[in-house]
Amino acid sequence: MPPTVRKVNLAEAFERIPAPWQPHVAGVVNGCAVKLARFRGEFLWHQHEHEDEMFLVVKGAFTMRLRDGDVHLKAGELVVIPRGVEHMPVAEQEALVLLFEPRGTLNTGNIRDARTVENPPTI
Amino acid sequence: MPPTVRKVNLAEAFERIPAPWQPHVAGVVNGCAVKLARFRGEFLWHQHEHEDEMFLVVKGAFTMRLRDGDVHLKAGELVVIPRGVEHMPVAEQEALVLLFEPRGTLNTGNIRDARTVENPPTI
Repeated sequence: MPPTVRKVNLAEAFERIPAPWQPHVAGVVNGCAVKLARFRGEFLWHQHEHEDEMFLVVKGAFTMRLRDGDVHLKAGELVVIPRGVEHMPVAEQEALVLLFEPRGTLNTGNIRDARTVENPPTI
Repeated sequence: MPPTVRKVNLAEAFERIPAPWQPHVAGVVNGCAVKLARFRGEFLWHQHEHEDEMFLVVKGAFTMRLRDGDVHLKAGELVVIPRGVEHMPVAEQEALVLLFEPRGTLNTGNIRDARTVENPPTI
């Protein structure tokens, strides 16, 4: 097998993520990262000026709050949040989420707080 | 809800795909497409000169044949095939697969045959 080809089992990878809201990089595709994160509780209102973000629920469910309404997402559902659109993920129960976005996209977008992750590790 | 935010339920979307090996676009993130395809049978050896491709199995299982060995993938597993690496997906039973690659990436890469899809429709 070429050394650059690495299979990732999502369930095993999520188990290695120690806490909610900490994105980890599962792969890079044309400079765009596949990130994994556990969602639990309320995150914060933010937006990304230059980057779209895709969220795919792998397990559980969460609500993406938008200024114009809520989008409820459960396992097997995805949504793309275009750049510039304010959003806040909220998960009453834990949700396991796969994201597509540039590697350098900050999880907290235009906001800095204790949950900001500057350089997400590879999982 | 902003009109640009559209939730996609993967199970419902896959049901609208009429035949295997026909990619459909479920969303676009920073110019890169989230595509859905049903895999069944043998595809063909091909490579993409300039594009990496990610394959995530949503349901079922398939084998990614590589010149140096096989990678067996089941639901909840993903792999990134770097540009220039020859590969051939083979699915003994039907597999439902989410791909992440540039919108213009040809499903058959450097090969043209009856299964080449020039402009995958949006689902």
